[in-house]
Amino acid sequence: MSTLSPTPRSTLTRKRDRAATDRERLYEVLDEALICHLGLVLNGSPVVLPTGYGRDGDTLYFHGSSGAGNIRAAAEGIDVCVTVTLLDGLVYARSLNNHSMNYRSAVVHGKARLVTGDEKMHGLYVVTEHLTPGSWDHARAVTAKERAAVSVLALDLAEASVKIRAGEPVDEPEDMDSHHIWAGVVPVQTTLGTPVPATYVPAGAPVPEHVRDRKLS
Amino acid sequence: MSTLSPTPRSTLTRKRDRAATDRERLYEVLDEALICHLGLVLNGSPVVLPTGYGRDGDTLYFHGSSGAGNIRAAAEGIDVCVTVTLLDGLVYARSLNNHSMNYRSAVVHGKARLVTGDEKMHGLYVVTEHLTPGSWDHARAVTAKERAAVSVLALDLAEASVKIRAGEPVDEPEDMDSHHIWAGVVPVQTTLGTPVPATYVPAGAPVPEHVRDRKLS
Repeated sequence: MSTLSPTPRSTLTRKRDRAATDRERLYEVLDEALICHLGLVLNGSPVVLPTGYGRDGDTLYFHGSSGAGNIRAAAEGIDVCVTVTLLDGLVYARSLNNHSMNYRSAVVHGKARLVTGDEKMHGLYVVTEHLTPGSWDHARAVTAKERAAVSVLALDLAEASVKIRAGEPVDEPEDMDSHHIWAGVVPVQTTLGTPVPATYVPAGAPVPEHVRDRKLS
Repeated sequence: MSTLSPTPRSTLTRKRDRAATDRERLYEVLDEALICHLGLVLNGSPVVLPTGYGRDGDTLYFHGSSGAGNIRAAAEGIDVCVTVTLLDGLVYARSLNNHSMNYRSAVVHGKARLVTGDEKMHGLYVVTEHLTPGSWDHARAVTAKERAAVSVLALDLAEASVKIRAGEPVDEPEDMDSHHIWAGVVPVQTTLGTPVPATYVPAGAPVPEHVRDRKLS
């Protein structure tokens, strides 16, 4: 099993025990989450925006309107940071100081590249199937005009780190006998509700399997 | 009702109809979400990290270890971007191009300031009560040593924008009669599970009300 390649900016300087250098963990986080936060520097200031994405092997694809400032900037090959976070639990400790969160987060650094031609269509496929699996075959395909209006970017998973906090709270030795104070974890889950058809879908039309059976991994 | 103060970097250049300039919307997004993504520029590169936070009026507080690189950098008064995103739904359109997400996101730009003394304690209170309301009174208080090991930062909600996409898919006129293609929304929800006591909590100890009844707004 391959490990991640830490560089100074992808190496955790705090809580090293929370760094998972296992590439499978990286894939799990990226595949389970629904959206990422894309960070870049625009006019000298950091900008962080929520964005859809998808993963194929060691490539992350994301897309946006060809006219969007952040997408145009990223397409010019500037440094980006893509962060994906899954919040798994609220950690109540006996001391306030040890309150925490259970989470899994992936941070990917690199320069995104604008993809074209066949890889652009593949990137759109990967992003579509990440968020709405089954839609690529079910829905009406992208026209040439629609394809021109969207930019697809690729980011290699070369410089990445995963940070995980799991399990119960960690309390101080002096708090272990303070049984009047509760400690534990409240799990946090993301769930999907019942599909709501658009008003222009005929009444009684069945919800297709790929929507009805959509599960979060 | 006050409105947000758009500046060039907080003004949306795309999808202006999704910009909600209502300050109440900003408060709702910030109060409902559990974590934020903090972006800053370190050694010329963007870095985006998931972080806990809390809001009091028009101030956002967040904290971290006094030794953490991102917290030290933010404390020096450099530009930060704090983004909070609530994913509300997966939007299936009849065309792939109109697939989307329902979401609410808040983006706050500014320079964070390190807070000390009484405001530091107040900031810790605000961050604690955002994620684990009730813990401030229930859990063991912060000692002077613990307080020294944590840095608390404040960010004014002066330069902020809110972007919201809600409701059903928007499809093209030419797809309105394609009734063989489904369109609609699959809601996405964040829910809390049953509290799990730490192994060092005596068996049968009751889960306190503030934990048992914790609700997401």
